[in-house]
Amino acid sequence: MSWEDNVRKVVPYTPGEQPKSSGVIKLNTNENPYPPSPLVAKAIKEYDASLLRKYPDTGASELVEEMASAYGVKSENIFVGIGSDDVLALAFLTFFNSESPVIFPDITYSFYDVWAELYRIPYETKALDEEFRLKKEDYLCDNGGVVIANPNAPTGVELSLDVIEEILAYNRDRVVIVDEAYVDFGARSALPLIDKYDNLLVVQTFSKSRALAGIRIGMAFGQKKLIDYLKDVKFSFNSYTLNPLTIAVGAAALRDDAYFKDITAKTVATRERMKKELKELGFSFADSRTNFVFATHERLTAEEIFTFLREKNIFVRHFKKPRSIDNYLRISVGTDEEIDRLITALKELIR
Amino acid sequence: MSWEDNVRKVVPYTPGEQPKSSGVIKLNTNENPYPPSPLVAKAIKEYDASLLRKYPDTGASELVEEMASAYGVKSENIFVGIGSDDVLALAFLTFFNSESPVIFPDITYSFYDVWAELYRIPYETKALDEEFRLKKEDYLCDNGGVVIANPNAPTGVELSLDVIEEILAYNRDRVVIVDEAYVDFGARSALPLIDKYDNLLVVQTFSKSRALAGIRIGMAFGQKKLIDYLKDVKFSFNSYTLNPLTIAVGAAALRDDAYFKDITAKTVATRERMKKELKELGFSFADSRTNFVFATHERLTAEEIFTFLREKNIFVRHFKKPRSIDNYLRISVGTDEEIDRLITALKELIR
Repeated sequence: MSWEDNVRKVVPYTPGEQPKSSGVIKLNTNENPYPPSPLVAKAIKEYDASLLRKYPDTGASELVEEMASAYGVKSENIFVGIGSDDVLALAFLTFFNSESPVIFPDITYSFYDVWAELYRIPYETKALDEEFRLKKEDYLCDNGGVVIANPNAPTGVELSLDVIEEILAYNRDRVVIVDEAYVDFGARSALPLIDKYDNLLVVQTFSKSRALAGIRIGMAFGQKKLIDYLKDVKFSFNSYTLNPLTIAVGAAALRDDAYFKDITAKTVATRERMKKELKELGFSFADSRTNFVFATHERLTAEEIFTFLREKNIFVRHFKKPRSIDNYLRISVGTDEEIDRLITALKELIR
Repeated sequence: MSWEDNVRKVVPYTPGEQPKSSGVIKLNTNENPYPPSPLVAKAIKEYDASLLRKYPDTGASELVEEMASAYGVKSENIFVGIGSDDVLALAFLTFFNSESPVIFPDITYSFYDVWAELYRIPYETKALDEEFRLKKEDYLCDNGGVVIANPNAPTGVELSLDVIEEILAYNRDRVVIVDEAYVDFGARSALPLIDKYDNLLVVQTFSKSRALAGIRIGMAFGQKKLIDYLKDVKFSFNSYTLNPLTIAVGAAALRDDAYFKDITAKTVATRERMKKELKELGFSFADSRTNFVFATHERLTAEEIFTFLREKNIFVRHFKKPRSIDNYLRISVGTDEEIDRLITALKELIR
């Protein structure tokens, strides 16, 4: 017998590579190619470091109030955490405490099954169809909770709000999490449905559209009762998580709505151009509503393309996962210049 | 049936009050009365906000390397998290996966039983003696793991390293966590024992002696194998937690060892004077090796004193807990001036 017998053993997630050298075109982690709002830099520069001797405001009020006003909800409808990963993991822990399995698609954000295993939550995956679309009948069944990424990752496919509402209506007695990490790039948010469905938790993040992957802010929206349960679990675990610098940065970013709309519009425009060029080069992909395109080539394997681009210092993401997705590449939408260089490189390989 | 039936219900921790008005003397949350090192302010002012668009370095290398050099260990012996609460909670989740109960004192840091309940870890508390000392025989038994805060909170009592080593030696086949949140204020750290005992995890924090309660940095030291298990669980949960601003702040604080020693020495000197004055006023307390004194009065109840001080805008901590501790106050060591004002107020009440 050894202490190792009692260790909870898990398979850690392998994040996309973060190369330290400059000169790399990083299209592998869905980061925003633009810097955060200039108001963020200002908030940091003006921050009074002496405040750090005290514990943070556990309610992160400055941030939550700014969020309430930006999203048109009340503060009591908001839960904030350290990136949406923290929010989602806490939501799994809080709401999925049943014997019936939690259900989610077989191709989706790769953390869902890991959290379920970590917390010993039974789960079951439901196969997407050949075009990576979710079959709604799969979600109208007995279950312990539902998790849907919308748009889905890494496919980029959007599910209509009508279908989401049907799933919500069927599952009134369990919590349905809609993970909207990428929603700002052109999909419709389920946020307005929280008034109608007390079992709906909508999760979003500052990592993509707010250009703040580094700061680690995620949030959940829901009715007060749902949010209060999340807070109870969070406060039993670690009362102080978001530090005051993080809170100041997040609030500053929210105050600059014009900048947010501007960089988001730029990313959407670049994505649409990128789709056109990729199509001409023989790629196919579902219609992405995100800041990435999940593409496969008619002739070359994903592995070949990945390796070629890598040599050119262009990093994209290749998931070595079951089913057909191992022949796909997830390519983040960069700046126009970065995408030009991607397309030039691909032309060299393909033609 | 409702979704609420499946909610994991917990009792959230109530943190010490954070009054928003100034003019309050805050001796209720064991914050450092001095600001963090001037190098911290400099690091924040000079931080390049554009870096925040990218995900953080998951390994927090800048911070971990600075820590390795400050504490004389290797980087592979260090795990960092969002305050020691995060580190401790992850350690509970990772290492206490047994049917036998985890054991810790009945009077100790109030999060231990909450984490155990949250993660469905069986636990058992062992009564301290009348002088708040731990009885070592209680820890030489079959168990699923041991947690010892040293010095203990909220009592301030130090346990000798010899006893800790005996407990470590007896429990070779389970993990022993030594939580050293307050160790820098004059107690002996178990850190040197990690070379000898692969079942020892030593946890510390930046919240007290580093004057950075706000920034949320905690760390664990242990042999590589132990640390790797913690990392696996952390990376399965949320790969990116410490943001780069936090990492820069933590590394800057570690670079200013002279400042750290200076403010720590000041706090220790103030504490010793405070003990003398409190004793003269009829208080008794165990010999504190922390930045607080856990005191009871020969005549007045803790409640009376608490209420009186509160009216004078002096906040101290009163735990309404079982056993004798509800007649104790935990009073943080402030600046000399703050403690002068505390003593003046107490004289007014007591004489």
